[in-house]
Amino acid sequence: MAETPYARLEKLFRRLGTLEDAEGVLKWDQAVMMPRGGAGARGAQVAELRAVRHGMISAPETSDLLDAADEGDGLDPWQTANLHHMRRRWCHATALDETLLRAMAKAESACETAWRTARPEADLAAVLPFLQAVLALVREAAAAKAGKLGLDPYDALLDRYEPGARAEEIEPVFDELEDFLPGLLADALAAQDAGPAPRAPPGPFALGQQRALGMRLMEALGFDFDHGRLDETLHPFCGGVPEDLRVTTRYDEDDFASGLMGVLHETGHALYDRGLPSAWRGQPVGDALGMAVHESQSLLIEMQVCRSRPFMEYAAPLIAEAFSGSGPEWEAENLHRLALRVRPGFIRVDADEVTYPAHVILRYRLEKAMIEGGMEAADLPGAWNQGMEHALGITTPSDREGCLQDIHWYVGAWGYFPTYTLGAMMAAQLFQAAERAEGAIGNGIARGDFAPLLAWLACNVHAKGSLLTSDQLLTAATGRPLDAGAFEAHLKSRYLG
Amino acid sequence: MAETPYARLEKLFRRLGTLEDAEGVLKWDQAVMMPRGGAGARGAQVAELRAVRHGMISAPETSDLLDAADEGDGLDPWQTANLHHMRRRWCHATALDETLLRAMAKAESACETAWRTARPEADLAAVLPFLQAVLALVREAAAAKAGKLGLDPYDALLDRYEPGARAEEIEPVFDELEDFLPGLLADALAAQDAGPAPRAPPGPFALGQQRALGMRLMEALGFDFDHGRLDETLHPFCGGVPEDLRVTTRYDEDDFASGLMGVLHETGHALYDRGLPSAWRGQPVGDALGMAVHESQSLLIEMQVCRSRPFMEYAAPLIAEAFSGSGPEWEAENLHRLALRVRPGFIRVDADEVTYPAHVILRYRLEKAMIEGGMEAADLPGAWNQGMEHALGITTPSDREGCLQDIHWYVGAWGYFPTYTLGAMMAAQLFQAAERAEGAIGNGIARGDFAPLLAWLACNVHAKGSLLTSDQLLTAATGRPLDAGAFEAHLKSRYLG
Repeated sequence: MAETPYARLEKLFRRLGTLEDAEGVLKWDQAVMMPRGGAGARGAQVAELRAVRHGMISAPETSDLLDAADEGDGLDPWQTANLHHMRRRWCHATALDETLLRAMAKAESACETAWRTARPEADLAAVLPFLQAVLALVREAAAAKAGKLGLDPYDALLDRYEPGARAEEIEPVFDELEDFLPGLLADALAAQDAGPAPRAPPGPFALGQQRALGMRLMEALGFDFDHGRLDETLHPFCGGVPEDLRVTTRYDEDDFASGLMGVLHETGHALYDRGLPSAWRGQPVGDALGMAVHESQSLLIEMQVCRSRPFMEYAAPLIAEAFSGSGPEWEAENLHRLALRVRPGFIRVDADEVTYPAHVILRYRLEKAMIEGGMEAADLPGAWNQGMEHALGITTPSDREGCLQDIHWYVGAWGYFPTYTLGAMMAAQLFQAAERAEGAIGNGIARGDFAPLLAWLACNVHAKGSLLTSDQLLTAATGRPLDAGAFEAHLKSRYLG
Repeated sequence: MAETPYARLEKLFRRLGTLEDAEGVLKWDQAVMMPRGGAGARGAQVAELRAVRHGMISAPETSDLLDAADEGDGLDPWQTANLHHMRRRWCHATALDETLLRAMAKAESACETAWRTARPEADLAAVLPFLQAVLALVREAAAAKAGKLGLDPYDALLDRYEPGARAEEIEPVFDELEDFLPGLLADALAAQDAGPAPRAPPGPFALGQQRALGMRLMEALGFDFDHGRLDETLHPFCGGVPEDLRVTTRYDEDDFASGLMGVLHETGHALYDRGLPSAWRGQPVGDALGMAVHESQSLLIEMQVCRSRPFMEYAAPLIAEAFSGSGPEWEAENLHRLALRVRPGFIRVDADEVTYPAHVILRYRLEKAMIEGGMEAADLPGAWNQGMEHALGITTPSDREGCLQDIHWYVGAWGYFPTYTLGAMMAAQLFQAAERAEGAIGNGIARGDFAPLLAWLACNVHAKGSLLTSDQLLTAATGRPLDAGAFEAHLKSRYLG
């Protein structure tokens, strides 16, 4: 019997997925192991892998198979979802012609290089022409994708990172956050000032001890070192593939908590990837749903679990033991207070969970205006600094702490920022539902027993892969689509309780 | 103007070379970093990269371009050599059909798995059926390649590892070695017994100190850590790409010399790759000439340079400093004696340079007989043990120390073994010529000045890439094609002098 069009598509996408896996390993090596002189050769390798994948997915045969498979009967829900994601990927891949793709790769590479010098020197003028070139091409790409996907230009960019996410659904949620967060922040700061100030345990903290502690807690959370590693890098991330997950962090000799929370955050990403449905490994429907859901899993582990009081009851003795510490600084109550310090600041990646959404919402509004044409890159510093003043009441000292801080726009990642805050809200909503469903999750955490929570996540999130949309997944798991309610309740309970 | 067929071939082979580079990084990671649970996914990635490359090189267009380019005029010598190697690679790649390639990959993978268990248990019977299956397929492949390349079956296998090498040229050289080595070994052992016994410096030797010493000597030899790394692995090798060379070694806490000599050996490989002609980077003519020449560069650094008395004069104080050692064990004379101990043994990779050729010649004769059909895999233990008795006068205690010790045959690498000893002879002949040309090379080495030697190698070997055949390269560099003369003179001078 001849293979069905759908079966042939599965073969093609398995090959594409395998090549993408290879690229993932190369990118991990680039960030963690590669000497700087290897950059040019590595760039060529990654570009070649992408060219091969682009050639395979944009071959005329793929389009024919997608059309033929659409007409086929008898696909089960996983296969139907898989076909949907195949078509979506094909649309994203073929919306841009070769000339535009090459122009973007070149402009983004040049802009990244300029940005790496401009940021430490707070010299926006030096990178602005490169950013303007990137923005012009991203606008062109957004228009091309919008046509192909039948979406607004900004949504067409957003859809690449979080399939199905739309600005018209994000707007009201972000509005809601902007309504209650300023008041909540003021109250949280007042409550914080009214209580005793936490005391930082005295360092320095040897890197080997920090690493051993991180590995111990990773294992407690179910990370399997037969299927992964922990290494150091400048910008922590979780890379690799589900069978071989590469968690990375950055250690600070004077502050063990920053590296440890990085480890735990990335472990949340790793647990998601590890729990993806193995029967669909290599197929689009077997992949993670999107960056917002991915971030929900890292933030659920870091924010909901590991900065909670029950977790600190469990972890404080292990932390003290790891660094041979003793005294009140090492007790759960103090470590918990330290983990929950709130302070408005300029840098997104250093922000606490109360002020983080303000950073994201500002970037979202600015990038949307720039994509839609209502704002130009040259207007960025003024609009940025005004936005920070308005949202957090702080005056940005220079573009280094302002619109130069994040790499995203300079390398063409437009439409990514919203996923951070969507993920934070999803994390709160999912954790609330898990607690309701499992009852004693908090008690388990205080004893270092994460099994009930992990089983709930595995079943309700990880094993779903990309079978459902984000809203369907949240509705199935929590009873309703995403809203800001659980996030607000979480922040109030934690910071005003 | 339309691109010439030759120019289009250069584009194709640049893409193939880039994909091969990517595979090199994946293989390094697999050996050095990958957790064991990642093996399946990594295997799929490497197989997919090979399938992509095979599809590209065996496309009908490649054959047409090669034919058209052959008729073109105006290629310079580098381009002509490049075209020759393109055709050679195309022949090797297309000689075997898809069915045979898949059968070989499957049989080799199964055989390797069986071998990994059978070797420690000295259980040849358990792996023999797998080895027989591999041999049957390798014979089939040799016949297919022989037809396509117009060579004898064994030469067709050899040609993959050392282009242009032929058994009829190897035979007389190996005969010559077999003539003088037994007598030389007896004399060397007698001379060794007549002198004072060397004393091993007392360990243990901390791994961090061993590593720091290795890096210091690598740098002295011109290794650039902006373009490479030093890591640990079970079976040392040099991987990566010319811009990013990954040297690996294995440390023994009780014997710093084994890990250090491993580092220096692999550094010789790395210096060759780093010195390949950058103008031809990514093209077949810009690649290393073959495994024998590659091995000549590692053995030149390890055997000719780093086990020499001048090198020990330079290195002994650094070694003593690295381990805070003092006393007669740490002096150059003692360390030099230690580095030159001769002792017949069972294990090839532990053999000294006097006995090493016997290990290789035995394997060469056995594998050639098996490929030609005059011997079967089941005859292996008997023939092996008889050969060792004859060559070195030692009785192999079990197949673990016998025909199970090397992975090569079990993973389908037939025709590889001769390159080790061809490399040792080339190393001696090249070093002799370098000393004649540069005069004070030995004096420089004693002062840690390797620049004259490295400049001579860069110019006469590294920068030639694959422009010349091995014989042409040796003739240009040393005045004559390969013979055993310089190797014999080297051994006599070092071990009987």
